[in-house]
This record gives sequence, C-alpha cells and structure tokens, in this order.
Amino acid sequence: VSTTVLCGGVGAARFLRGLIEVVGQSTVTAVVNVGDDTVLHGLHVSPDLDTVTYTLADAIDPERGWGLAHESWHAMEVLARYGNPTWFNLGDRDLATHIVRTERLRAGAPLSSVTDHIARSWGLSLRLLPVTDDPLRTMVTIDDADTGPREIEFQEYFVGRRHDVPVTAVRFDGAEATTPAPGVAEAIGAAATVVIAPSNPVVSIGPLLAVPGVREAVTARRDHAVAVSPIVAGAALKGPADRMLRELGHEVSVVGIARLYAPLAATLVIDTADAHRAGEVEAEGMACVVADTVMRDVDRAAGVAEVVLEHG
Amino acid sequence: VSTTVLCGGVGAARFLRGLIEVVGQSTVTAVVNVGDDTVLHGLHVSPDLDTVTYTLADAIDPERGWGLAHESWHAMEVLARYGNPTWFNLGDRDLATHIVRTERLRAGAPLSSVTDHIARSWGLSLRLLPVTDDPLRTMVTIDDADTGPREIEFQEYFVGRRHDVPVTAVRFDGAEATTPAPGVAEAIGAAATVVIAPSNPVVSIGPLLAVPGVREAVTARRDHAVAVSPIVAGAALKGPADRMLRELGHEVSVVGIARLYAPLAATLVIDTADAHRAGEVEAEGMACVVADTVMRDVDRAAGVAEVVLEHG
Repeated sequence: VSTTVLCGGVGAARFLRGLIEVVGQSTVTAVVNVGDDTVLHGLHVSPDLDTVTYTLADAIDPERGWGLAHESWHAMEVLARYGNPTWFNLGDRDLATHIVRTERLRAGAPLSSVTDHIARSWGLSLRLLPVTDDPLRTMVTIDDADTGPREIEFQEYFVGRRHDVPVTAVRFDGAEATTPAPGVAEAIGAAATVVIAPSNPVVSIGPLLAVPGVREAVTARRDHAVAVSPIVAGAALKGPADRMLRELGHEVSVVGIARLYAPLAATLVIDTADAHRAGEVEAEGMACVVADTVMRDVDRAAGVAEVVLEHG
Repeated sequence: VSTTVLCGGVGAARFLRGLIEVVGQSTVTAVVNVGDDTVLHGLHVSPDLDTVTYTLADAIDPERGWGLAHESWHAMEVLARYGNPTWFNLGDRDLATHIVRTERLRAGAPLSSVTDHIARSWGLSLRLLPVTDDPLRTMVTIDDADTGPREIEFQEYFVGRRHDVPVTAVRFDGAEATTPAPGVAEAIGAAATVVIAPSNPVVSIGPLLAVPGVREAVTARRDHAVAVSPIVAGAALKGPADRMLRELGHEVSVVGIARLYAPLAATLVIDTADAHRAGEVEAEGMACVVADTVMRDVDRAAGVAEVVLEHG
C-alpha cells in the first residue's frame, strides 16, 4: 500500500514526517516542487527538496524552519567580502549540499539521480523525486511601489522581498517544455493514496501541475486523492499563501481551496476551526473531513496522516 | 622602480610580505604558479594564488601555513557525508574563495581577472598575476610501492600522499599550448628587478618557466634577475624540494640551485649557513650574495628583500 505526496517545502515536509511515523519510509514517494530552485554563487539551490530531506533526516533547524541545525555562516561572510549577493543566506553545512548537487549536475547527472544520492546520504529510504529534471522556474510579477509591475524570480520575491509586496501574476517559466522526472507519473498512477500536501497551492503545488502530464495523472486518480488544506481559519499557517491567493482573486478559505482542488482530489481535509464551512466545501464537489490539521509536532502530523490514509 | 617576483606558494608569499614592507605594494607584480591548481567538488582551487593573497592580507593561518586563520570545517563534514573526497581539507571561509573563482570562470572570466577581483577584495594593491590563464597541470610520476610507477596530479602527490613517495618525473601537462597571462611578459620585461622567490625550483618555478615565452623573458633580464635559494644547508625549509631535487638527479645544495638558475639570473642569494660554498656558486656563473635568508618573521623577510633589491 503505497502513498504518493505532492509537495512544496515546510508544510509538506511536516506532513511527510508524520506520514512516515505511521507507514514507514519504504512505501512513500514524495514528488517535490522545483519551481523555487535558483542559482546562487554559481551553485544550484533546491530549497523545497532540501527542506524535505533535512526535515525527514531530523537535521532541519527547528527555529528557522529551513537549513540545517547547528549551522554556521562563515562562508557567507567571505562571499560578502567578494561582493556576492547576501540576501539569501546559505549556511556552511548547507553549502556542501549545493556544492555536491552542482558538481553532479555539471557532470551530466539528472536532478532526480542527484536528489536520490543526497537523500540516501542522509539515511532516507523514501523515494524523493523532483517533479521534473528539466528547468522550470516560478516567476512572480510584483507591483513594485517604486518601479511599477515587474517580473522577478520566486526567491527574489520570497526571500529578497520577504514576500511583502503585492503579486499580480505567477508564471512557471519553461514548464511547457518539461517532462515528469522518471517515476513521477508511475508513482501517482500506482499509489493507493495520492496526497496534496498542505503547501501553497499557487507556488508550491502549482508548478507540479504545470509539468505536462502531472495534472492529468492526478486527475485520473481523483477518487483516491486527498488534499490537506493549507488555509486554516482564513489564513496560511506559514508563508504568503493567504495573501497571494487573495491578490490573485481566490477566496482565502477552505472553500477557496476546494474550488482549486475539486478537479484533482475527491476529499479535502480541513481544520476543526473551519468545521462550520464543511457544507460549503462539499458544495464544491469534494468530500470534507474535519480534523486537527495544525502540525505542531510529529504526533499531530502523524494524526493528520492517519486521517488522510483513512480517506484515500 | 618596479619589482616582479616569480612565485610558488608559502616561501614566495613570505618573501613578498617582506618585500612590500620595504617598497609598498603598488610597484610589485607577483607572477604565480598555477600548476598546483586542481578541481575539488567541482570547484577550481588555486593553492599558490590563495596562499599569496591570504598571506599578504594577513589572513593566512600562521600555524598551518595555508588557508585562512580562525577557520571552521563544517562544510567538509557534510561533503564527507556525500562521499566526496576528504583528503584535501577546505575550510568554510576558504570555500567562498573557490566558489567565487569557479562562478566567475564558468561565466567566462579569465583566471587573471578573477584573481585580480579576489586580491582587491582582500585589500591588496599589488599586481597578482597567474602565470597563465590557460590550463596547465603539474603531473608527478611516483614510484608507488604497491602499483609501481604511475602519474598523478600534483595535489594528489603533495596532499594526498603527503609528498612521502619517490618521484621519478615531473611534467607540466598542457604547458606548450599556454600563453602568458596579460601583463606577465611586460612585468618581467619592465621590472627594475626580477626575483625568483625561494620556492620549489621543480614544481613551483618550473611551471612558470614551462609557459612559452616566460623563460625567454626572464633570460633577457638575467642581469637584473636575483634568485633566492630555497635550499639552506642542504635541505628545504618547507616542503619536498630537497627530496624531489635529489630524486630527479640534482645536487641538493646552493650549488645545485646555481646550476638550475644560472641561465636565468645573474645573482643567487644564499644563507649564511652556506657561505662556505659561495665560491662554488660563483664557479657556476652566478654572483653570490650571502645573507640571513630564513624568513622567521616579517622583519627577516624584509631583510632578505633589501638584499635582493640591492643586487637587482
């Protein structure tokens, strides 16, 4: 009985941590967003893949929610001396991951095989797949107070501007030319349960669905697909999902999420705080399950996973 | 009145440190060996250039004699986790230099302009030139006790084998196809004094002379060229120069050095410990100057520089 999870970063990583507490790693496939990937100092950085890896390896920094615990920042000081950009902090230990990824990509290895090597090196046995081995970049059009509308890379919006600027459009550059990484379509097709993790629907799940074939593969499994709402009581627990949904014209609620996911998944898991809107979710065409979805710790995350598996 | 110094790593860096104490940085050009360069973890490492830069910036680790002071080694731990080679230690701060060098080389910048950027970033104003922008690799044939003779990269011999294995040949791979980096031939041609630093004649100065045009440029300035012997009392102060000279059939003494450098420089500076062999040096066709050449500190290095400048 296998589970395939469509993943962004932090929310998905926490869900996966709970899921493997329940079913172990060997039957789990994580299909992860690469639209956030960027090149810094000539190094290929894959924030969502690394967040999932470090979280499942219990190596993530629990305070920051990204990067490695017990991290130091010495290389960054010297990069600053050389005039390199400093708006995206990279720790010394974390840099090793980007160095190895870049070394292997340059030697011709696809991102999926590099990702597998990194995951195994951290002792993971689940299958961790980038959604595609091809270049796909999430581009965000911001309404800059000074310069007017302009399109920037996701990380420049998310980290550089601390996602504190209005967004008028999101585009997945290069998506139409990508194909799913080896195993992605099969993992979605063969899973007992397909899960849409509680990640940002626009910039975390959106890029996955923009890879030709992935939306179709999920839709074909709609009856066994379960989404977990990333919106609780009208707000995102983390990150700019709420603000971004609003700015792009979506309702910021479990009903808004249901409208986005109804074509893809038969079931939506919503938080008890939103129980009073279960009827409206069902009116959008999804079965609605109410549960405690705020994953404060591994036990709570395992609880969410159990609810999801029950309804897949 | 300008000075051009042909340089390897540690010995040359100490001499330069003394020289700039005497004449300042602005009139000094250092032409540095790149035969030791190597690629580690996909990053371009230039040990001799970095030793010179870090030493002149007073940032070198004084105990180790290479790399940066107050260094940490956290990235290396994670590189080891990924199965990357660990025989060549790279500190976290030092890694930033290799990352920036690699980034700029990949973007198409020549090594000389990258080196200039790195030197300026450390506040240096002397001219620091790699001898060539083209690939040149020092290859060492070792007589391996287990496998018999085989040719390996210099760093594999120097660091990987701790230069503790017999050498039967040295070759400068690619040298015939290189040209001197911009400014190298001019700096040798125009200098009031050309100095051959107290570096390993075979693997530090040798690669410089293997770049077509450099030997000729130095020879043309022989009357104003001064070499400082890297051999004192029949031994190298640091590194494998003595052992390597012996294994390659040279006499390990100031007389052996005179035989190697007589075609290039009119004058050899030898240590007081070797004063009794001054006549033999002169018999090889070089003027011989006796001085205290052991550069224990900056003052002593400045003293050596003063002697050199007097005789250039």
